[in-house]
Amino acid sequence: MATQALAAWTVSLSYPDLPEEVIHAAVRSFYNIAGCIVGGSEHPATTKARKALSPFSGPPTSHLLGTNTSTDAMHAALFNGIASHVHDYDDTHLDTIIHPTGPVACALLAIIPTLPRPVSGAEFITALVAGIEAECKIGLAVWPRHYDIGWHITSTTGSIGAAVAAAKLLSLETGQVAHAIGLAATQVTGLREMFGSHAKSFHPGMAAQNGLVAALLAREGFTSSVEALEAKRGWASVVCSGGNHRLEEEIAGLGERWEIVRDAFKPFPCGIVVHPVIDGCVWLHGELERVGVEVDDVEEVVVDVHPLVLELTGKTAPRDGLEAKFSVYHGGAVGLLLGKATPAQYEDDVVLDRRVVALRGRFRAVPDESLRADECHLVVKVRGGASIEKHIDYAVGSLERPMTNEQLTAKFVDQCVGILGEERTDKASEWCWGLEKQADISQIKEVL
Amino acid sequence: MATQALAAWTVSLSYPDLPEEVIHAAVRSFYNIAGCIVGGSEHPATTKARKALSPFSGPPTSHLLGTNTSTDAMHAALFNGIASHVHDYDDTHLDTIIHPTGPVACALLAIIPTLPRPVSGAEFITALVAGIEAECKIGLAVWPRHYDIGWHITSTTGSIGAAVAAAKLLSLETGQVAHAIGLAATQVTGLREMFGSHAKSFHPGMAAQNGLVAALLAREGFTSSVEALEAKRGWASVVCSGGNHRLEEEIAGLGERWEIVRDAFKPFPCGIVVHPVIDGCVWLHGELERVGVEVDDVEEVVVDVHPLVLELTGKTAPRDGLEAKFSVYHGGAVGLLLGKATPAQYEDDVVLDRRVVALRGRFRAVPDESLRADECHLVVKVRGGASIEKHIDYAVGSLERPMTNEQLTAKFVDQCVGILGEERTDKASEWCWGLEKQADISQIKEVL
Repeated sequence: MATQALAAWTVSLSYPDLPEEVIHAAVRSFYNIAGCIVGGSEHPATTKARKALSPFSGPPTSHLLGTNTSTDAMHAALFNGIASHVHDYDDTHLDTIIHPTGPVACALLAIIPTLPRPVSGAEFITALVAGIEAECKIGLAVWPRHYDIGWHITSTTGSIGAAVAAAKLLSLETGQVAHAIGLAATQVTGLREMFGSHAKSFHPGMAAQNGLVAALLAREGFTSSVEALEAKRGWASVVCSGGNHRLEEEIAGLGERWEIVRDAFKPFPCGIVVHPVIDGCVWLHGELERVGVEVDDVEEVVVDVHPLVLELTGKTAPRDGLEAKFSVYHGGAVGLLLGKATPAQYEDDVVLDRRVVALRGRFRAVPDESLRADECHLVVKVRGGASIEKHIDYAVGSLERPMTNEQLTAKFVDQCVGILGEERTDKASEWCWGLEKQADISQIKEVL
Repeated sequence: MATQALAAWTVSLSYPDLPEEVIHAAVRSFYNIAGCIVGGSEHPATTKARKALSPFSGPPTSHLLGTNTSTDAMHAALFNGIASHVHDYDDTHLDTIIHPTGPVACALLAIIPTLPRPVSGAEFITALVAGIEAECKIGLAVWPRHYDIGWHITSTTGSIGAAVAAAKLLSLETGQVAHAIGLAATQVTGLREMFGSHAKSFHPGMAAQNGLVAALLAREGFTSSVEALEAKRGWASVVCSGGNHRLEEEIAGLGERWEIVRDAFKPFPCGIVVHPVIDGCVWLHGELERVGVEVDDVEEVVVDVHPLVLELTGKTAPRDGLEAKFSVYHGGAVGLLLGKATPAQYEDDVVLDRRVVALRGRFRAVPDESLRADECHLVVKVRGGASIEKHIDYAVGSLERPMTNEQLTAKFVDQCVGILGEERTDKASEWCWGLEKQADISQIKEVL
């Protein structure tokens, strides 16, 4: 039932069905991921993949954001997908920790220029929402067991979301959409064991490509199981190792509880458990400035955090930017010393900078079961005996304190300006915020 | 350890290390799969995939066997891989029921024409053996739990085998091979739930493509986990749902017990549990002819089989060729009526033929726990009271009664002659049997 129900819901969804808050969330998701794709477009993971696979590329229909290059739709989905995730800076559906927008948006952006008609912002948003809802609902159905076993839930659900979105854009019939879902479901890409290597960002890229392939095959009558998700040995059962899943209930909730409005945006390019500490340290940076205390006069920073924070991000001496993402000490140190944590503060040379290393060494993290994972308490002890405290109840970027459009704009500009220059960045920002009213999404090639 | 050990073994393997029986087995594996790829080249699953994805294809370097068409290496791996498996007629590593040759051979054939040098038969055989050994060893490590959970073990191990083989051919260093293994391992394609649909043959095609992508990325320095197979949340653990696996032991046996010599070839295009019955019925067809009895005078055929045979292939009234593969009754009926079971006897019109349907209805299968799954007992009762019995201890195609080279040749010719014509088929057969001494494998384009 679930596979057919998801397919039927996908086909029936139309733009006028979308509540205003859903459209608003979709525009923000798109805006955020567009900046992330540009920001990741020159990362070594992205450029190595381009170099390795470009010799096999087909007609260059589809734009690689942040570059002057196009490639075929399959490779564009892959390369943009890698770029979208490589800085760990994309969006997060907090209930499942899926990063849902990358696989779906990259599949859509790749296939749009190959269609014989322009795709409007409204049509794009409808397909994007269909894909994101699909991902998050099936993710909720298998959470947390699926993730605990070791699957990277962003890509294992992402291929199905990308297939749903592409199928919507290709106007497939319900039966074809079901086959597309099955063909995506049988490609289960993404082991958590890959975290810390290039393969992590390869996952959402492949999810985008695999979903696209699934939809295109289904359009030609290529078949899969029509009970791919819910069968005894279907996707949900297999990726849960036979454990219980809640597929039917979650699919039944499509269009009733919208998941995209529960999608959050990262203010800092690292795992979200570090965000409260960075948020507090950025505030403390301003406070030290205000009271005229030099960071060199900080003797100790005591950070009370939920034990999970240290379990996931307890690296005290990261050796490069990739490792620094798993160091609450690094996040706190750059926040306190530099007042910000953007991808630039996760460059290798910053991670190894003398002052950053020294300040990291003065951080002491204390696990405290009484705190939530998205909460922290900070005490900065200054030479001479004074101290400044800060309690973060909810970090910026949480659902309780969502990033404002202004903050999203600053993040977008920070990622794009070094690549596009100021003038093009401002125009691109305006175009992306205006997604709803765009008549032809393939214009993104001129914009980003 | 296992990932590095497999990578190191791959790099160190050389043609002179291969025992004569391994080379012999490799030639037979290649010969058999080449015929299967040609035989599957015009199946709807193959042609639909070609139609759906060809618009995205890159430089046509790589030949699609059985056609006049070339495409880029990625798509060639996929399309040849689909064709290799679509008739369920490929090879079987009986200890794991992996069909190992398709993913590996299709990855190799696809990448060879893109290399700046000719690849000899000896080099091809070395890479093929490396890939097949890798697949079967890691398959043994997770068998049977992995299959029982619902994974199509041919493709879940096939991507890793294809990556190993491609990495060997690309002369990657040990560290790069390990990354290639990881990048293949994180792409876990293939749910058994897809059996009975086009997606089943999509699996080995994607395994070939995914393995190729993994090796090409690794060559450019794209990284994965270096403990991808054996880590706590690595491939073996995740695809066994955390159950025990025997990865270290199996990898330690590389080059000691060769798996390729335990690879069997299918005389009939369907699941191997049906083979004893078909084998017996083909013999009975000749016996009826010899004694001058018409098949229309057969009143009943009683077939004693292991209960598993009915569990897997108990369809009494298949509606098309795909369903007929899961009908021991159909296999028996065409064997008895027509004296053979090749892909032609699994065409839809044969499945629905009046005489075939009538004879199927006169079969009675009796589960018998005392028989092995590869054993059966047949009694044909003829009008007037006479009966003929046949006991099959081991079916043709089993390790105990392997197909002879002459039988493999007949199978090859049967698959190729309708597509290539007699003269080209005979030349192709000769060329493929001469694999060892070929100086340039890319000549296959002119041959098949």
